Amino acid sequence: MTKEQLFKNIKKKRSFLCIGLDADIQKIPSHLLKTDDPVFSFNRAIIDATQQLCVAYKPNLAFYESLGNKGWMAFEKTVTYLKENYPDQFIIADAKRGDIGNTSEMYARSFFEELDIDAITVAPYMGEDSVKPFLSYKDKWVILLALTSNKGSLDFQFFKDEKGERLFEKVIKTSQNWANEENLMYVVGATQGEMFKEIRKIAPDYFLLVPGVGAQGGSLQDVAKYGMNDSCGLLINSSRAIIYADNTSGFAQAAYKEALKVQIEMELLLNEYKLL
Amino acid sequence: MTKEQLFKNIKKKRSFLCIGLDADIQKIPSHLLKTDDPVFSFNRAIIDATQQLCVAYKPNLAFYESLGNKGWMAFEKTVTYLKENYPDQFIIADAKRGDIGNTSEMYARSFFEELDIDAITVAPYMGEDSVKPFLSYKDKWVILLALTSNKGSLDFQFFKDEKGERLFEKVIKTSQNWANEENLMYVVGATQGEMFKEIRKIAPDYFLLVPGVGAQGGSLQDVAKYGMNDSCGLLINSSRAIIYADNTSGFAQAAYKEALKVQIEMELLLNEYKLL
Repeated sequence: MTKEQLFKNIKKKRSFLCIGLDADIQKIPSHLLKTDDPVFSFNRAIIDATQQLCVAYKPNLAFYESLGNKGWMAFEKTVTYLKENYPDQFIIADAKRGDIGNTSEMYARSFFEELDIDAITVAPYMGEDSVKPFLSYKDKWVILLALTSNKGSLDFQFFKDEKGERLFEKVIKTSQNWANEENLMYVVGATQGEMFKEIRKIAPDYFLLVPGVGAQGGSLQDVAKYGMNDSCGLLINSSRAIIYADNTSGFAQAAYKEALKVQIEMELLLNEYKLL
Repeated sequence: MTKEQLFKNIKKKRSFLCIGLDADIQKIPSHLLKTDDPVFSFNRAIIDATQQLCVAYKPNLAFYESLGNKGWMAFEKTVTYLKENYPDQFIIADAKRGDIGNTSEMYARSFFEELDIDAITVAPYMGEDSVKPFLSYKDKWVILLALTSNKGSLDFQFFKDEKGERLFEKVIKTSQNWANEENLMYVVGATQGEMFKEIRKIAPDYFLLVPGVGAQGGSLQDVAKYGMNDSCGLLINSSRAIIYADNTSGFAQAAYKEALKVQIEMELLLNEYKLL
């Protein structure tokens, strides 16, 4: 998917919501455990209920890999289901990969060629040759970890050089030599509030994938105020607050209601910033 | 496995070799492609041929994941085969994971509980809460990326603060607050030669997992000279140079010969540094 198509979908849906498909077998409604593939059944119901309200889905690979072989099948079925039924959804494999070149190539082949996924999250620690193999696919995206939403982000991401430049800034600046705003986004946690202003100075036109609204406590208004650009430039992820809104047989309807609340807020913001 | 057991195995085998099981379907001998599970058949033959000469095996998850569901089955079968037949081998899942706490917990459950693997490689970018969930398992290890063997290691790992401390040093120092030499190792690339001297100043007693000898050009002598400690403290990984030594039906015998060359060199070094 191109940046232009993504922005078009945002305007059509009046939403820049990304729903995190973090299907934890220990948290999904118990009646689903009787089905053949509980994780896929859960995902399909969540997707059918919410797809009008969001522009992207982000399965986090950890949740699938932790189930081994069965988990991988559920992941692949989820991707195929999205591709076949809702082809305008932007699919992000939240994998946080990053390895030496020949290994990153294997990952790129797996996610972009075999599964035809739109984007993959990548960790920057190993530098250019760990990221580049993902950048050679047309209309496919790397979403590089820059400033994450967790407490541990303080450990290394704010490490500062003698000129006062912090590691996350160095990551954002350096990676712009490898790619551009048509194939690269950054992860910036919603919990980082006012940091969005600084990030927009060094990456004005890039899309940012923003976790941490909802369960982790970030504010949608703040993120929009400091982070929105003229192509919206934001994909706000929410996982637990939506998909686990309820754990009875009404879970999908509850997920719909939660997603609708967010979509309404987003429509107001898109109007406020004159993007509709 | 404890650190003491690992050192005992090193002395018994007179080797500190780790063999990287990077089974690439495009590189394994063509006659294996006719078998039910070519990747597992390849791994099993390599393991049977080399297990006397090494103390550890390191499957890199990328190679398995790139085959989807089938690849995961081959990975799980390989781990089970090692556990059942060669229980003294230290098994490292080269996964380079690292995510927010609840997600790292899922990975920990998958690798340590379900598969009973000894160690997992973890990327440090997201800090403490992305690493900690892996540290709560008895006799299981985190191997944290510190200074990698690839060209891209120059991009961020040498980023220096106002006191001259570099990011990889900061990672090594900070992480010692979370763990100790009984459950934490570091990845340090063999291509980084003289850096081992500096790393031993800040992590004298820790095991280091060292990729980059062989195909990537690092020197075993240099690594031993600067990196060995009184528990050996080194696991030297070699992948391609051993497992792809030959691609005919004699591939396992060829792998044996290559591993034997390395083991002989290692025995000499263990003698030279009076560890046998």
